[in-house]
Amino acid sequence: MAVKGLFISFEGGEGAGKSTQVGLLLARLRERGFDALSVREPGGTPLGEQVRAWVKSVDVAPATELLLFASARAQLVDKVIKPSLERGRVVVADRFADSTVAYQGYGRGLPLELVEAVNKVATGGVMPDITFLLDLPIESAMERIGKPQLGLGMEAKAAAGRADEAGQSKFEEAGVAFHRRVRSGFLKMVKAEPQRMLLVDATKPGDEIAASVWQIVERALERREAAQPESKGQPGQSRLI
Amino acid sequence: MAVKGLFISFEGGEGAGKSTQVGLLLARLRERGFDALSVREPGGTPLGEQVRAWVKSVDVAPATELLLFASARAQLVDKVIKPSLERGRVVVADRFADSTVAYQGYGRGLPLELVEAVNKVATGGVMPDITFLLDLPIESAMERIGKPQLGLGMEAKAAAGRADEAGQSKFEEAGVAFHRRVRSGFLKMVKAEPQRMLLVDATKPGDEIAASVWQIVERALERREAAQPESKGQPGQSRLI
Repeated sequence: MAVKGLFISFEGGEGAGKSTQVGLLLARLRERGFDALSVREPGGTPLGEQVRAWVKSVDVAPATELLLFASARAQLVDKVIKPSLERGRVVVADRFADSTVAYQGYGRGLPLELVEAVNKVATGGVMPDITFLLDLPIESAMERIGKPQLGLGMEAKAAAGRADEAGQSKFEEAGVAFHRRVRSGFLKMVKAEPQRMLLVDATKPGDEIAASVWQIVERALERREAAQPESKGQPGQSRLI
Repeated sequence: MAVKGLFISFEGGEGAGKSTQVGLLLARLRERGFDALSVREPGGTPLGEQVRAWVKSVDVAPATELLLFASARAQLVDKVIKPSLERGRVVVADRFADSTVAYQGYGRGLPLELVEAVNKVATGGVMPDITFLLDLPIESAMERIGKPQLGLGMEAKAAAGRADEAGQSKFEEAGVAFHRRVRSGFLKMVKAEPQRMLLVDATKPGDEIAASVWQIVERALERREAAQPESKGQPGQSRLI
């Protein structure tokens, strides 16, 4: 039986603190001796970088965009995520397939069954073991995201409308209504998949969130170790504490 | 009411004579004064050309490939096919969405409902009015395709397996069984959509096939003219005969 890694994703709207939590979790995992890596779409593979450049520079149709992001995801799953999990690594994703459902499906109004089918092709069934949804009221997100701090993920950027290099607020551009649909979509998804998706109140301080996240991840890692005693003692996977 | 063009596609396995028939039909249409153009995936848009180069040069996963071709198709539909049809032009495609179903679905065994959903996203519902399936027994196709004449479409190339620049026969590489599945898939599709798809015996001489194709296209053009009398007299669309 192959050693099985752990796949964790963070989801949520802009300004919810996903990147911060990914960084904190990754640091904690490594500190404890786990072989962990983080991924962020559409980068992470040469194709992903190319897709990022295309979407930035070329006038792509909405369907083209969805399919390009999906192709970058397929490549990331095949070349990075799946091999890492097979080697027993812990993979932490800053957004994954759920964002496509929330942004392109609920946000843009593309038929959900089509978005989900495209996701299925892209992921090949590789889905996170745990997904933390960092939920934030739109008003708080708007307060947090000042123009100088704009650092939207590509998928969100694309979903929110054509990026304005001058830094115009994505919230203004895409409209608050769009972000409300995205948020309510995420919340529906948590209700539909309570086993995998966990709702996190993102108005709480970051270290408090990180502590709750760690509790859950630690338990999942312990369950994994218990289920796979043969993984113990393998270099890069032994726990120091 | 907008002038509506006519969308025609040619499908079939390698060596069936699709490119020849596309060329003959295009010449005949132009000779008769119709504003016609041909398209061939994944080219036809700057993105399509990039996808073509990418799939040739990079080790892409099967799902990545499917989604990349689909994104090129979405772009071609949005930027070329749809605007052309809206302007009343006749679009002739050398392969379109049916090839994906036949090659990736029936040939490679990807779940048909996923392939069809990806197609739906890519085409946005823009499907050919008429599709000619040039059907050829595998043995005849193998005879026709000598190594020096190898000129497979990208999608078929990709579907048939990684292209060997040295020119190794795709039939040998992918196996005759694969091409049998593709052919039988195409035949099932014709049976399922007899209104749109027409079966053509591709063992017949090319000029005979072209004559039958023209009969059907001419009738469709006449029906279109009858339904849209306001299109008469528009430059580039008037029939000379």
